[in-house]
Amino acid sequence: MSILWTLISLSLILAVRSSAAEIVPPRTTLLDNLRIRRGAPFRIALFADLHFGEATWTEWGPQQDLNSVRAMSTLLDKEQPDFVIYLGDVVTANNIVIQNASFYWDQALSPTRARGIPWSSIFGNHDDAPFEWPMEWFSEIGIPQIHCPDSNASFAGAEECSFRGTTRSELMKSETERNTLSYSKNGPQDLWPSVSNYVLKISSSSDSQEAVVYMYFFDSGGGSYPKVISNAQVKWFENKSKEVNPDSRVPEIIFWHIPSEAYKEVAPKSDLRQDCVGSIFLEDVASQEAEQGIMKVIEERPSVKAVFVGHNHGLDWCCPHKKLWLCFARHTGYGGYGNWTKGARVIEINEKPFSLKSWVRMEDGHLHSEVLLSS
Amino acid sequence: MSILWTLISLSLILAVRSSAAEIVPPRTTLLDNLRIRRGAPFRIALFADLHFGEATWTEWGPQQDLNSVRAMSTLLDKEQPDFVIYLGDVVTANNIVIQNASFYWDQALSPTRARGIPWSSIFGNHDDAPFEWPMEWFSEIGIPQIHCPDSNASFAGAEECSFRGTTRSELMKSETERNTLSYSKNGPQDLWPSVSNYVLKISSSSDSQEAVVYMYFFDSGGGSYPKVISNAQVKWFENKSKEVNPDSRVPEIIFWHIPSEAYKEVAPKSDLRQDCVGSIFLEDVASQEAEQGIMKVIEERPSVKAVFVGHNHGLDWCCPHKKLWLCFARHTGYGGYGNWTKGARVIEINEKPFSLKSWVRMEDGHLHSEVLLSS
Repeated sequence: MSILWTLISLSLILAVRSSAAEIVPPRTTLLDNLRIRRGAPFRIALFADLHFGEATWTEWGPQQDLNSVRAMSTLLDKEQPDFVIYLGDVVTANNIVIQNASFYWDQALSPTRARGIPWSSIFGNHDDAPFEWPMEWFSEIGIPQIHCPDSNASFAGAEECSFRGTTRSELMKSETERNTLSYSKNGPQDLWPSVSNYVLKISSSSDSQEAVVYMYFFDSGGGSYPKVISNAQVKWFENKSKEVNPDSRVPEIIFWHIPSEAYKEVAPKSDLRQDCVGSIFLEDVASQEAEQGIMKVIEERPSVKAVFVGHNHGLDWCCPHKKLWLCFARHTGYGGYGNWTKGARVIEINEKPFSLKSWVRMEDGHLHSEVLLSS
Repeated sequence: MSILWTLISLSLILAVRSSAAEIVPPRTTLLDNLRIRRGAPFRIALFADLHFGEATWTEWGPQQDLNSVRAMSTLLDKEQPDFVIYLGDVVTANNIVIQNASFYWDQALSPTRARGIPWSSIFGNHDDAPFEWPMEWFSEIGIPQIHCPDSNASFAGAEECSFRGTTRSELMKSETERNTLSYSKNGPQDLWPSVSNYVLKISSSSDSQEAVVYMYFFDSGGGSYPKVISNAQVKWFENKSKEVNPDSRVPEIIFWHIPSEAYKEVAPKSDLRQDCVGSIFLEDVASQEAEQGIMKVIEERPSVKAVFVGHNHGLDWCCPHKKLWLCFARHTGYGGYGNWTKGARVIEINEKPFSLKSWVRMEDGHLHSEVLLSS
């Protein structure tokens, strides 16, 4: 068992290292803004709920991470996206026994980085969740021999191979400092404990100053604090959107991890609407714990076309809600609950004439649930 | 509000400091073992569920800590115990916003230290619980201005005034390194994440080598890991008790925080036994999450006379169970749930002839629920 674990770990580390060394371009080749290529659509792939680092002390866990690397690689090669969004629950921190969960976070980034594709990420409720001790470790079997990949030390009961977790700020710092391709941002300090709050502009092929779409990213909480978008984040969005897109001329799309309560209203499992587009409707919406006003502001802002969330692995629909769309991504990772086949929601932006489309691409190559979100 | 808070804090700090400076004897005056004084009974006061540091950002919280200091002081002056046991939930770590919860832990120790009385402590489920963000801090009111007593800095959203908590090991290290009167021990490393596992000997007035009673202390978990006494702790007890008291000649008493499942069986709320002795029977027993064998070992060991726990603030009974007694302490702190009047269970050991008695002393002075546990 231990030898197999070591082999799997080693192959994963080698896979990550060799691919990471290949293609990463130097910072100077990056534009400050993301930019649509002339005559081509701009495609974004959403990687949702990868859950790296799950059950690290088993053979199953590291194997799932390898499967997730394979799934992402396949999806990237099929869709050739211009940008990737890691939509939260990148890691299962409540299973991670090493001091720095960035070790696993970094593995999740590797297929995208290896292809030179820029990305950004937001936090889910598992990314900084406190370690949850399995009850069986207190029975006769005891605490297993745990391998600590960042220290080369093996562990049997001491605190060196720590269980104290990695904060959102530490994860974000590690991602952005080590990766020239990362567009993630730490977000304003006064929004803490929420961290992944920022805006990205996708600009026109003909004019790098001209915005075609604004993307807003929110930290919807969970893990170390409640699952909520705070009133402070709502105010930040109001101010920020007024600043960057004062007349609501430019279309806007929004990303966070945990569905807001509006998702519950729009598509209750028991009474599915005809105008919803998707392939799995197998769960109740697991929404945020409270609603502090973000939906009201979004609904009243004419430029917001769609919201994209992850969190529910058994849902992949888009449903119309008032004048916008509420969409789930598709479970991309082999970690996390549920045995539904893996895939990624793709968003395609066409500049002239403007359109915003989306579909789900599966790991086996097939495509479904195409929907026009705006034109 | 802020001025009141400052005044309360200041008076608490001054009260703690001035009393702490008075009486602490140097280490050389301490015996390695606790020893019964000739011709006098040996009295132990149990301080259960003090919950210091609760709701630190309100006026209520710091006021409760002052009330708890007053309650302990009164009880100590009335009973004049030879030893104090802090029976867990000394602090409410899930409310503590400063880096080092030892600040509050130390306040809880202060009345005992100020009187030169030795003590030991065990951990409860709140002592290293992760911080729980109040949902209201995410609404319009926002995160309150929080005072950070150990840094003199005030806080409004940065991570300096930390929410990451203090581990059991850190709390224990801080207590034992700073206090010559502390008999607490870190416990064997291989029992980690449980920490407060150790044995203390109370020796005879006529022979310091001769044990009159052994006290075993267990960490019953909770907070950062499940509420359980592990199989490893059971084995440790088997080995340790065989080592120190091989023929079970010396009576033994046991302390941990969370009642084991046997407590549920012995005194269900709905069907109270005639032979239970206590004054409040107002809750269901909130027991540990699993039973890995500690009760079986204890029940089979003839020298074990009683087990003492806290955790349930609304229970203060002792009930016979097989050939021993299962006892609750009495809620001593003004922190924690419940408005029952405060008190402390007292244990009295007489050497010759041997007897083990217990009662509950209330803050208002009256005494009740006296019971003979062994003679």
